[in-house]
Amino acid sequence: MKPIWIYGVQSVRALLAARPAAVLELVAAAGGRGAREELWRRAAEVGVRRREARPRELDALCGVESHQGVAARAPLPPYVELEELGARAPHLLLALDGITDPQNLGAIVRSAEALGASGALWPADRSAGLSPAAHKASAGALEWLPVARVVNLARALRELKDAGFWIYGADPAGDRSSREIEFAEKRVLVIGSEGKGIRPVVEREVDFRVRIELAGRTESLNASVACAIMLFQATAGSAGALPGK
Amino acid sequence: MKPIWIYGVQSVRALLAARPAAVLELVAAAGGRGAREELWRRAAEVGVRRREARPRELDALCGVESHQGVAARAPLPPYVELEELGARAPHLLLALDGITDPQNLGAIVRSAEALGASGALWPADRSAGLSPAAHKASAGALEWLPVARVVNLARALRELKDAGFWIYGADPAGDRSSREIEFAEKRVLVIGSEGKGIRPVVEREVDFRVRIELAGRTESLNASVACAIMLFQATAGSAGALPGK
Repeated sequence: MKPIWIYGVQSVRALLAARPAAVLELVAAAGGRGAREELWRRAAEVGVRRREARPRELDALCGVESHQGVAARAPLPPYVELEELGARAPHLLLALDGITDPQNLGAIVRSAEALGASGALWPADRSAGLSPAAHKASAGALEWLPVARVVNLARALRELKDAGFWIYGADPAGDRSSREIEFAEKRVLVIGSEGKGIRPVVEREVDFRVRIELAGRTESLNASVACAIMLFQATAGSAGALPGK
Repeated sequence: MKPIWIYGVQSVRALLAARPAAVLELVAAAGGRGAREELWRRAAEVGVRRREARPRELDALCGVESHQGVAARAPLPPYVELEELGARAPHLLLALDGITDPQNLGAIVRSAEALGASGALWPADRSAGLSPAAHKASAGALEWLPVARVVNLARALRELKDAGFWIYGADPAGDRSSREIEFAEKRVLVIGSEGKGIRPVVEREVDFRVRIELAGRTESLNASVACAIMLFQATAGSAGALPGK
């Protein structure tokens, strides 16, 4: 992949920690203190070329104003193969079906990595992909969470099932409560888009349709919140009531 | 409070359901279908004056382009008194200390109402307040969740303690895991700002400092995600291991 400007304090910090050799240059607003000063020093320690710039120049490089005064030129993190994802402990994967907003995608990846997922997958079509905006929204978590981009999400789920995974779909009308369910040791959580949910063709591969119990008048949770609660539940009961297939 | 334009499909739907008599006028983009058509019909049913407008006019009325083609003129929902908040079942309150972004505030209120909180409180200073942007970000949940705005958050927590509440602070360095803790029947969750956490003056009123177990390299969860996980846990164990004070 070709180098691009990755921006934001947490994103640049994660990038320098995860892939220092991939960074071609760090650019920071002059007079940096606190977090920016720390990144400036850190770049020198790992041998990355540094340059000071005016905020305006950073705006132009990044194409946004939300860069927080720091950007680094590097390729986006590479996708991994589905097989690699399936082989990684703790075998807790997240499949995203139709998350088209980079902010949502990044927010979900942030929660997933923080709560201990071992990877994420999403389709090449009808999904946001890796981008500097998603990287920033992930607070740098895209540097740590392995991601596979697949051509056909339903087929990818079938392959994971063949490898012993059970598939849990988040579904407001699901017949299992997320409070009761015991997740299997090898598990994939499927999250659909906020408006439309999981597509029928993907739903067919779901073994358990899991709902989060709601108690108010508000009809639904934000996709990233629903995802975080499911992940939190999935990491609690990972002893596994179900045997591997 | 004086009337203002409340916009967005979910916000206007909640407004028409919760306070139809407070709505002076509904304005919708011409040729509405689906959700807009439903709101147009609903407004007539509850006797609200309706008018069609061009999207540009809606942009001007709302001051944003994210109105989704529909807006209603009404006062924002009124704040309630702290005493009223404390008296409401199921006695699960949320105290927000330093959530200054309207989007974050709205997202938190959405999760809180959906998951069954009985109210929220925040200080008049150093906090976002009620606004059309927060209303939309709450997906209309601000119509259903009672909110108190207090002058002094620490003093409000003391008053709630006197009324039998226990105070739980979300704290990445907390000595109790959110997975282990049993919440009391009358409980207040305190959420601080993402960067700075709970202020020391407020922290002094906290009875239990609760951390969400993280398993990845990402340092923290988004405030709204952390809040939702705490709420989800707080509604699970509401049998109450601790007696009322």
